[in-house]
Amino acid sequence: MAFIGASSDPNKWGFRILANLVDGGYQGKIYPVNPKKGEILGWQVYATVADIPETPDMAVIVVPPQQVSNAVKDCVARGIQAGVVITAGFAETGNEKLEQEFVDIARKGGMVLVGPNSQGIVNTEANLYPQMPPLFPKPGHLAIVSQSGNIVGTTSRHLTIRGFGCSKCISSGNEADLHTEDYIEYLANDPQTKVILSYLEGVKDGKRFIEVAREASKKKPIVILKSGDTDAGAKAAKSHTSALAGSDAVYQAMFQQTGIIRVSTIYEMLDAALAFLCYPLPRGRRVGIVAAGGGWGVLATDACAKLGLDVVTLSPETISELDSFMPVWWSRGNPVDLVAGTFGENLTRAVEVVLKSPATDGVILLGLIPAARPGRVMQSMTEADRKRAQDDMAERIIGVIDGIAEMVKRCGKPVIIGSELPAISAAFAQQLNKALADKNFWCFTMPHEAATAFALLARYAEYLNLK
Amino acid sequence: MAFIGASSDPNKWGFRILANLVDGGYQGKIYPVNPKKGEILGWQVYATVADIPETPDMAVIVVPPQQVSNAVKDCVARGIQAGVVITAGFAETGNEKLEQEFVDIARKGGMVLVGPNSQGIVNTEANLYPQMPPLFPKPGHLAIVSQSGNIVGTTSRHLTIRGFGCSKCISSGNEADLHTEDYIEYLANDPQTKVILSYLEGVKDGKRFIEVAREASKKKPIVILKSGDTDAGAKAAKSHTSALAGSDAVYQAMFQQTGIIRVSTIYEMLDAALAFLCYPLPRGRRVGIVAAGGGWGVLATDACAKLGLDVVTLSPETISELDSFMPVWWSRGNPVDLVAGTFGENLTRAVEVVLKSPATDGVILLGLIPAARPGRVMQSMTEADRKRAQDDMAERIIGVIDGIAEMVKRCGKPVIIGSELPAISAAFAQQLNKALADKNFWCFTMPHEAATAFALLARYAEYLNLK
Repeated sequence: MAFIGASSDPNKWGFRILANLVDGGYQGKIYPVNPKKGEILGWQVYATVADIPETPDMAVIVVPPQQVSNAVKDCVARGIQAGVVITAGFAETGNEKLEQEFVDIARKGGMVLVGPNSQGIVNTEANLYPQMPPLFPKPGHLAIVSQSGNIVGTTSRHLTIRGFGCSKCISSGNEADLHTEDYIEYLANDPQTKVILSYLEGVKDGKRFIEVAREASKKKPIVILKSGDTDAGAKAAKSHTSALAGSDAVYQAMFQQTGIIRVSTIYEMLDAALAFLCYPLPRGRRVGIVAAGGGWGVLATDACAKLGLDVVTLSPETISELDSFMPVWWSRGNPVDLVAGTFGENLTRAVEVVLKSPATDGVILLGLIPAARPGRVMQSMTEADRKRAQDDMAERIIGVIDGIAEMVKRCGKPVIIGSELPAISAAFAQQLNKALADKNFWCFTMPHEAATAFALLARYAEYLNLK
Repeated sequence: MAFIGASSDPNKWGFRILANLVDGGYQGKIYPVNPKKGEILGWQVYATVADIPETPDMAVIVVPPQQVSNAVKDCVARGIQAGVVITAGFAETGNEKLEQEFVDIARKGGMVLVGPNSQGIVNTEANLYPQMPPLFPKPGHLAIVSQSGNIVGTTSRHLTIRGFGCSKCISSGNEADLHTEDYIEYLANDPQTKVILSYLEGVKDGKRFIEVAREASKKKPIVILKSGDTDAGAKAAKSHTSALAGSDAVYQAMFQQTGIIRVSTIYEMLDAALAFLCYPLPRGRRVGIVAAGGGWGVLATDACAKLGLDVVTLSPETISELDSFMPVWWSRGNPVDLVAGTFGENLTRAVEVVLKSPATDGVILLGLIPAARPGRVMQSMTEADRKRAQDDMAERIIGVIDGIAEMVKRCGKPVIIGSELPAISAAFAQQLNKALADKNFWCFTMPHEAATAFALLARYAEYLNLK
């Protein structure tokens, strides 16, 4: 790994990014390049790229804008075939000519480039973290390609907090050479990646994007957060990464034709990522709702209806099977309101009855805590007792989820869970999320999140059937 | 406090709710009532209400449905003037007649009733927590009145996690006697309450609701999450609390006329609550955005545009003032993209320049972390070093926020902050949120949340000007 523009000044990106590369535990050799030579972070600094004793696989370029063309020239001369240009100040500030110059040099020399105006890249399998923020997501199956560096950071940070890792993170910057569609094409064939997430401000080669996305979508879901869908936003995008946001109707049609799952906020992108990673696809849009609380059931029903999901009428057989163990005052309809007093096994039993009904394509289950039969939580509990009670509850919740996972396998339909586990305490949520993530499982929190997850899974299932 | 239907069986609500009343630290006397007598949780049990040696201020009623009328009769006879009927199985299951029966008894006897089908109530000032879930929100200035008990729980749990408390929590259930509008009327005059939050499935007396809400809205903001705005949801609401959801267009018009702030998810209700509690109102819809990251700026711009906010063009004077200290490659427009490399004081300086510009009614600031100049976070840090680094960062972030709070006071305009602090770690977020909540301050996380907060504040400001 060549690092062109290395610095020993901790305030400069030439140091910070190099430090992240070193701290991340990259196993290969690192060749910092700086005319001043010396040593930085334990690695010998070379005056020029030509001086490096072997041909690096890749170069990270952090020199000032005017020097990028020369740096690329040096890389090509040294036989380096890939580079990440961190340096900004090109097309996004009107400097298209300078940008085109180094791209031409690279292309003529058979070198591909990420950036410029990139925050860096991550490949967790290789412990490779040459990027601006000191973020070290663990290995996982979610790839991020983003025209905003900050949004790569936001996404990987939030995935980390939820207990999940990444395969590759790419801050694609101005996309002067490699475009989003190139990364999608690569990630579609990357065995580490199961879901592709992308933040997009604009597409440069629409035709190729459509060809690539259509095929890639058949292999794995592509979730895209497309910004610039208002005039004001499009203007802001132009000055950010020089992207031409274009007509949103065109993008919308493009996404629909190619099976791309469009989301509208970062939260929704995270939710979509974990929906695809953790849940099987439903065969249709017919939803059964089992809610340990009437209000949650009503909110989920509204959310489903708005998302084009069908909260089906349950058959008399299903109702009578539920009658056999539910309290007499239960709602006798969909949503199945478990009402105060239905705890423990009855909750999972109700889920199974609704799940196996031929009328449903899957179930939304809201409220796990009653299933875990929480004991009386004393105000006056000691810290140790509270910890024990929480461990206990975490164990019981995981037990309930394991039972549901078995059920899902038996029935071949998803049970999307929404339960406000994070609200018990931040530490509890983190502990539980980690345990669940290790089992490749994620609980949504709110009714509208669970409904959105169901709708996104259903949309992708429809694309796969159409192919 | 009379507790009618007290039980010594820990699986029964007659025990659990009583336990929460005791654990919550209620300072008055508790009189459990059960024909079996004896003692529960340290309190002497009385066989009948008539046996209680003084007149209780209130009764909690947890007996089976068929016995509620008699319990109310006993209360009236004993001179009790207020009751909370926890018992379910009335109008929501088609049993309107039985419900009307005990309401008539209460009204004739001058007794008001919460419920039936209520989860209970909370008055934090009085340490009064007779409710189903073992939740003990701390005292605060947010009141919740909800036709769903679970949603009271969800809301108070999430507020607790964010570091905030409640004044009163009311699970209004079927609203056979007291209605949402009665609670709103009371809370509008409650000095502990600064913002009223309500989950609503349906209004029973539309005319009175409008009269009450119109006046109450002039005193403090009323934030309502109205469900049943789809046919499927309305049907679910009917079987939940017997509410008639009615035409959503009628509700929408009613909310607009009365200044009610309508939200569409529980998250949005929480965000609205903290927006009103922690931020001053803007005088209009003209927004300046300062973003420590281009992508965040674009997303915020889109969100603002969709919410009817105006991301204004900055004047040449403002641009040239920013030019004086920003790096040459900055975006020179709104959003002000601080771009990689703008740290520390420059961030708050940019906020101040945009805030004091006559062209803006307020600022959205995205990304606090760069302002706090984070050091190099080593992968290999010890737990203690990491803790110290986080304490350090929390302190610096609080310093930045304090500076901004001063600026807000000077300019009389809001600076809504969105910054992904929670993603640093769950413990860090909790620590920081607690410190900020103590200063009555809340940081939003995502760009769309900050934009939504601005829009909700602007909407309420418009109502106040119209009165």
